[in-house]
Amino acid sequence: MSLKLESFLERKGFLEKFDNYLFDCDGVLWEGDHVFPGIIEAMQLLRNAGKKVFFVTNNSTKSREAFLQKFKKLGIEANLDEIFSSAVATAAYLKHILQFPADKKVYIIGMSGIQHELEAMDIRCCGGEADNGPFDNEIVKNDPEVGAVVVGLDTQVNYKKYNKAFTYLRNNTGCYFIMTNQDSTFPVHGTLQPGAGSIAAPLITALNRQPDAILGKPAQNMMDTIFAEYKLDRERTCMIGDRLDTDIDFGLKGGVETLCVLTGVTSEEEILSKENNIVPTYYIRGFADFVVEP
Amino acid sequence: MSLKLESFLERKGFLEKFDNYLFDCDGVLWEGDHVFPGIIEAMQLLRNAGKKVFFVTNNSTKSREAFLQKFKKLGIEANLDEIFSSAVATAAYLKHILQFPADKKVYIIGMSGIQHELEAMDIRCCGGEADNGPFDNEIVKNDPEVGAVVVGLDTQVNYKKYNKAFTYLRNNTGCYFIMTNQDSTFPVHGTLQPGAGSIAAPLITALNRQPDAILGKPAQNMMDTIFAEYKLDRERTCMIGDRLDTDIDFGLKGGVETLCVLTGVTSEEEILSKENNIVPTYYIRGFADFVVEP
Repeated sequence: MSLKLESFLERKGFLEKFDNYLFDCDGVLWEGDHVFPGIIEAMQLLRNAGKKVFFVTNNSTKSREAFLQKFKKLGIEANLDEIFSSAVATAAYLKHILQFPADKKVYIIGMSGIQHELEAMDIRCCGGEADNGPFDNEIVKNDPEVGAVVVGLDTQVNYKKYNKAFTYLRNNTGCYFIMTNQDSTFPVHGTLQPGAGSIAAPLITALNRQPDAILGKPAQNMMDTIFAEYKLDRERTCMIGDRLDTDIDFGLKGGVETLCVLTGVTSEEEILSKENNIVPTYYIRGFADFVVEP
Repeated sequence: MSLKLESFLERKGFLEKFDNYLFDCDGVLWEGDHVFPGIIEAMQLLRNAGKKVFFVTNNSTKSREAFLQKFKKLGIEANLDEIFSSAVATAAYLKHILQFPADKKVYIIGMSGIQHELEAMDIRCCGGEADNGPFDNEIVKNDPEVGAVVVGLDTQVNYKKYNKAFTYLRNNTGCYFIMTNQDSTFPVHGTLQPGAGSIAAPLITALNRQPDAILGKPAQNMMDTIFAEYKLDRERTCMIGDRLDTDIDFGLKGGVETLCVLTGVTSEEEILSKENNIVPTYYIRGFADFVVEP
């Protein structure tokens, strides 16, 4: 049973219980380019209390630097090494887990964030923004140097990219098929749009093959990286998010307590529903409620 | 057990057995814009013998008229009323089965063939080629007049089209979700490309919903139309194609005998494999073999 944080004392007890807070961003801190009222003050309250803060996002479209610019623009304090994205997780997975060979390259269906993070780890890549634009019925030739296809959200996705990715995965033995995350939709302007999980679906259908790896929440790659780098105490760590199937499941799988906010895609009814089996430890109307005085 | 037509007498017997021939086109008569050697003569042999010929294609990208032009260009005799495509079947299904209301319109992910055939049956439509081009992060507004989304092969598919189709299907109660056909791939220049079944996959994933109808082979809509219009004798009718899971299954479901050619995607090994349970009555190296003399 999830506990709703309603009183000042409950909120105070929550803040005293944890030293480390992992934050989902979209739906918790902001929606699109609009920061929720009270968030800047609530985040500053954590900073003033000496808490450690990490940002854990499935959004692969921006680089870490571009995220940092966004935090600055919205007035939320953040540091580069506190930001973890599914693009960073994908690059780290290729580099450290797969030990992706230097003579191979990655074909990208996705936006600049993926290419930026791959190149930051010295992984060669192609496709992505370079393949924006119409398909001219050109014959797609296989490129045997492509050793992995990475698919993330791509609002400039097109047939050329699908055709190339399909050709490489079909012809290159051992070519990895990797999804940055599997969110089928994401919220924009109070509605939903198809997400990375939907963008990858034509390849799954055409190849009749599931991806070899999916990096974003609820997969544990970002969790593992943070715990390995910062030696945090799991009992003093809380994951805060707005989605049960990504954020809260991510926290549960990582063995930390969880807080679900109601400023994103999840309603109070869904959290409390008998059908729901992804139950956060706590939930609250919005993270900005932490600045409400008694 | 499938019988291979190898001798002149076997081929002669086959031609005497049937009055009506349903042909798949791509992989049987031609590949892309390249007619197979001997096909023009083999087709003329059927015409000279007074056989009825129909062309039954899952290709929704061209209108009937455009197909007729292609037949002419390649030198194969054909008439407009012999041509049946998944785009024609989709338009007929909307018109006659769904009795699609005149105050509603169809949103198209697909190429000009679909729009042409819908308009030929006085069905209003939008999208399709009009939505080619990049996605400018525009907010997609729902259009309550959209009463159906039709998805076919679209080599100019983009995020704008997916976003619009998703929005209409999600918001408009009773909005039909229709696929022209479900081929996950199709052959081009000796290789494969993602087909209509793959193009529709992001909507299936984002909506977590299967389509309401799939019109192309092996579905029986084109078969039913041909038999209703031409009062053919099923026992004197043969379906000829290169794909087991579309063409041959289409014939089997329609209760007619079938001939699989080896000039397309299916190999002799696949036809004879123990795992294969879609068994054609006959198979032959290529349809052009019918002009080989004893």
